[in-house]
Amino acid sequence: MDQVKEFNEYRAKMNEVLLGKNNKVINRLFNLDTNTYAEGALPVRTKEMLGLVASMVLRCDDCIKYHLGKCHDEGISTEEMYEIFAVANIVGGTIVIPHTRRAAEYWEALKAQ
Amino acid sequence: MDQVKEFNEYRAKMNEVLLGKNNKVINRLFNLDTNTYAEGALPVRTKEMLGLVASMVLRCDDCIKYHLGKCHDEGISTEEMYEIFAVANIVGGTIVIPHTRRAAEYWEALKAQ
Amino acid sequence: MDQVKEFNEYRAKMNEVLLGKNNKVINRLFNLDTNTYAEGALPVRTKEMLGLVASMVLRCDDCIKYHLGKCHDEGISTEEMYEIFAVANIVGGTIVIPHTRRAAEYWEALKAQ
Amino acid sequence: MDQVKEFNEYRAKMNEVLLGKNNKVINRLFNLDTNTYAEGALPVRTKEMLGLVASMVLRCDDCIKYHLGKCHDEGISTEEMYEIFAVANIVGGTIVIPHTRRAAEYWEALKAQ
Amino acid sequence: MDQVKEFNEYRAKMNEVLLGKNNKVINRLFNLDTNTYAEGALPVRTKEMLGLVASMVLRCDDCIKYHLGKCHDEGISTEEMYEIFAVANIVGGTIVIPHTRRAAEYWEALKAQ
Amino acid sequence: MDQVKEFNEYRAKMNEVLLGKNNKVINRLFNLDTNTYAEGALPVRTKEMLGLVASMVLRCDDCIKYHLGKCHDEGISTEEMYEIFAVANIVGGTIVIPHTRRAAEYWEALKAQ
Repeated sequence: MDQVKEFNEYRAKMNEVLLGKNNKVINRLFNLDTNTYAEGALPVRTKEMLGLVASMVLRCDDCIKYHLGKCHDEGISTEEMYEIFAVANIVGGTIVIPHTRRAAEYWEALKAQ
Repeated sequence: MDQVKEFNEYRAKMNEVLLGKNNKVINRLFNLDTNTYAEGALPVRTKEMLGLVASMVLRCDDCIKYHLGKCHDEGISTEEMYEIFAVANIVGGTIVIPHTRRAAEYWEALKAQ
Repeated sequence: MDQVKEFNEYRAKMNEVLLGKNNKVINRLFNLDTNTYAEGALPVRTKEMLGLVASMVLRCDDCIKYHLGKCHDEGISTEEMYEIFAVANIVGGTIVIPHTRRAAEYWEALKAQ
Repeated sequence: MDQVKEFNEYRAKMNEVLLGKNNKVINRLFNLDTNTYAEGALPVRTKEMLGLVASMVLRCDDCIKYHLGKCHDEGISTEEMYEIFAVANIVGGTIVIPHTRRAAEYWEALKAQ
Repeated sequence: MDQVKEFNEYRAKMNEVLLGKNNKVINRLFNLDTNTYAEGALPVRTKEMLGLVASMVLRCDDCIKYHLGKCHDEGISTEEMYEIFAVANIVGGTIVIPHTRRAAEYWEALKAQ
Repeated sequence: MDQVKEFNEYRAKMNEVLLGKNNKVINRLFNLDTNTYAEGALPVRTKEMLGLVASMVLRCDDCIKYHLGKCHDEGISTEEMYEIFAVANIVGGTIVIPHTRRAAEYWEALKAQ
């Protein structure tokens, strides 16, 4: 199975488990998370870039994949994407490189769809 | 093989390699680690919850699995577990969510045993 | 001015600034944060210990001070407190020690009130 | 002395010490850092927002101050700024709140100039 | 396929993708990364140990593997290696243990070549 | 008071408080910490460099100061020191720069003694 589909399916399946336990704090946090990236004074496109760079410097591969998907939906170009990668790698250091390799691979998978 | 067994076997196998080199600092740290979670002014049950939430905000999947196993042994309920997940996700942010998905999956595996 | 008072006053003053801008996400996150530590399947006392150990391994002095204050309110003893410090230092390593020094100092200030 | 001036002066003084040792790697990294935020496929304004959110989730007060200054130069509004704060606090969790308090204070100092 | 070969091949393949986009900042950072570990006032051998311990406390498995390979090339003994592991685990805490297990496994693979 | 003296005095005073509570885990961890940097397969000098670079990428100013003091005792030159700074800043990114500024200032204070 291709990695975009695999990522989305596992995420959807486990979110269902997590939210199904009806822990109020967790369910409200998920809701708040969605609102964070909604159109506001800043456009969705910018907010998704912010979410991506934050995920990269914190080195969370799944969070990176999620925001890469959203950035792809927002029509961010490969040239722009690599400038986000550049900020993440300069701020976060070479420790971010292995995550950038996986991000680059996932980005190619998104472009190939 | 189920993931609980797989986790425990790899952990046991590699601990043997690590401890077999007789590095005094590492071997004493392993020993000290065990003592940390022993009954004291705080009960084992509370200490394992502390170890779990610390592992979650530091986002170490294997450490999370280990403490999930111990919390399961201590009879922590699913409702209590999700309140620990809630603290970890609020303190540590949405960057903890992917680790919580995997924790939820492992918790289900523990309950299914 | 003693450090407990100084901490609480700066925190209150800046929370007013932050919440006064009416950013919905931030204001709801503050609200959710409060709910996280409310009585539930786990008692407030346990949740505050969880919040403290999470703050210690993430090495945030102000978060540590906040939860130390709450733990003090919950009647946690010095012996229990040092067992929480022990978990944080074992999980998080000696990098947590300088934060533990400041935590110990603040704890003494709380006890002296 | 006001905190904007104090921050800039210490930064300038110590950069001089650092760069004066002529370590090639450090001096080239400083140079590369400057290039990272130059106009490219993404405008300076967006890149500074990326640098800020990355600094916030990594919880580096001085890096936050630096990018706050740059964002202020780029004419970012308070409403936009708080949306960046929101992304940082949701992704990074409540552990980011104390840094956001100090960021809010510095932002007010920048606006007051 | 053995894990040393697998690691090196994926790394080489994705570095080609990353560098092929001609983002100046990323390409120069890769170049600067190489220079960092070149012979200087400190020998390569010491610098690779520094790179390894930094990668361990930051808990990046791929960075760890890379520097383990380099340390192996530099003739570092298993006894010396475990002293590096000891520093990383004491400074970084037990959260580093799972990464040390994987490091120990990779080290054995390097020795077996 | 000069910052070297101030740092050492606060550290000594608070260690006394911490160790005086007789929490076995904490007291043994302090003891183990000392052993970690003792002469072994690797010389003290190398181990202190390892401790320093680990402290820098984890961005703990007090840990950095402690190991700077030890490195100074071991006769590490300024040129060598800046190569350690270089590794820390490349691996850890520009987020390490503010800590490097403070490290450089403390290093000058140590040299001036």
